[in-house]
Amino acid sequence: MKEFEEKTIHTETIYDGEIVKLQVDDVTLPDGKTSKRELIRHTGAVGIIPITKENKIVFVKQYRKPLEKVLVEIPAGKLEDGEDPEMTALRELEEETGYRTDSLKFVASFYTSPGFADELMHLYLTEDIEPVEDAAAGDEDEFVERVELTLDEAKQYVKDQRIHDAKTNYAILYLESLERM
Amino acid sequence: MKEFEEKTIHTETIYDGEIVKLQVDDVTLPDGKTSKRELIRHTGAVGIIPITKENKIVFVKQYRKPLEKVLVEIPAGKLEDGEDPEMTALRELEEETGYRTDSLKFVASFYTSPGFADELMHLYLTEDIEPVEDAAAGDEDEFVERVELTLDEAKQYVKDQRIHDAKTNYAILYLESLERM
Repeated sequence: MKEFEEKTIHTETIYDGEIVKLQVDDVTLPDGKTSKRELIRHTGAVGIIPITKENKIVFVKQYRKPLEKVLVEIPAGKLEDGEDPEMTALRELEEETGYRTDSLKFVASFYTSPGFADELMHLYLTEDIEPVEDAAAGDEDEFVERVELTLDEAKQYVKDQRIHDAKTNYAILYLESLERM
Repeated sequence: MKEFEEKTIHTETIYDGEIVKLQVDDVTLPDGKTSKRELIRHTGAVGIIPITKENKIVFVKQYRKPLEKVLVEIPAGKLEDGEDPEMTALRELEEETGYRTDSLKFVASFYTSPGFADELMHLYLTEDIEPVEDAAAGDEDEFVERVELTLDEAKQYVKDQRIHDAKTNYAILYLESLERM
């Protein structure tokens, strides 16, 4: 795919934060001209689709500052640097929902916004979860509330845009496709 | 949902670019403590799932600088400020694929990465496309190549991670769910 490649002439880090790093690159385009690329660097993330014994899906309700609103999402979280995504998934599941599992099934992975960000999202399913008495606490600046819904209820949440993000919408469509409930 | 709300104490714009704006907010958390939020502002985007008369899905192959690799994606693009997403969809379809339509069906919308970005993605399906002789040219710094695949071929691309982004993976799962091919 050499004919599409953009060669980096110059890289500048504009901001190096807790969650994102913003970098602006000057590139040479395939036709020899130059352009700028704004790039968000992110360590990647996981989302977990936890199903209870009662066949309910476990979500978390969370305020999302970028949107200034509350969304209902599957539990999710950001990879620590160099962390195995499965480890992140186990940790985030416990911290956000108070459930633990030792069986994760890989569902899919995808870049969330490949035009400007390198965030890769890894999705897992678990149908074997146990409540944890002394669940690990999550990040101290994160406030989440567990919500358990049937697939039909979740589909209604999608219609009402209370569920309204890529990983969670994908998860609902995936569960529908399994026709498992 | 007042109990989850994070109040903005201070906003600072770190970078205001062509594609993204990076803003760092100081917020008051529900427990009264303070924290920082890194926020990417984006005008939103569309993705279009175009189906040909021969029942093939029209994709575009494109170099994605953040990933330093070529992905196969459904045609997509960024909203101009205040633009109606359907207008963006018609424009991007023509610019990126050389096809035109006047019938778009809304499929779904979702935030691509609600933890740090406000980008909202709108997905449309069109099963009624015509090749345009004198198709409008796209952005001059964008190099894309049209690829038409059957659903089975596209599913293989997902396995091979040549298709590997949220909107396109969602689109494939959606088409599978329609069992239309």
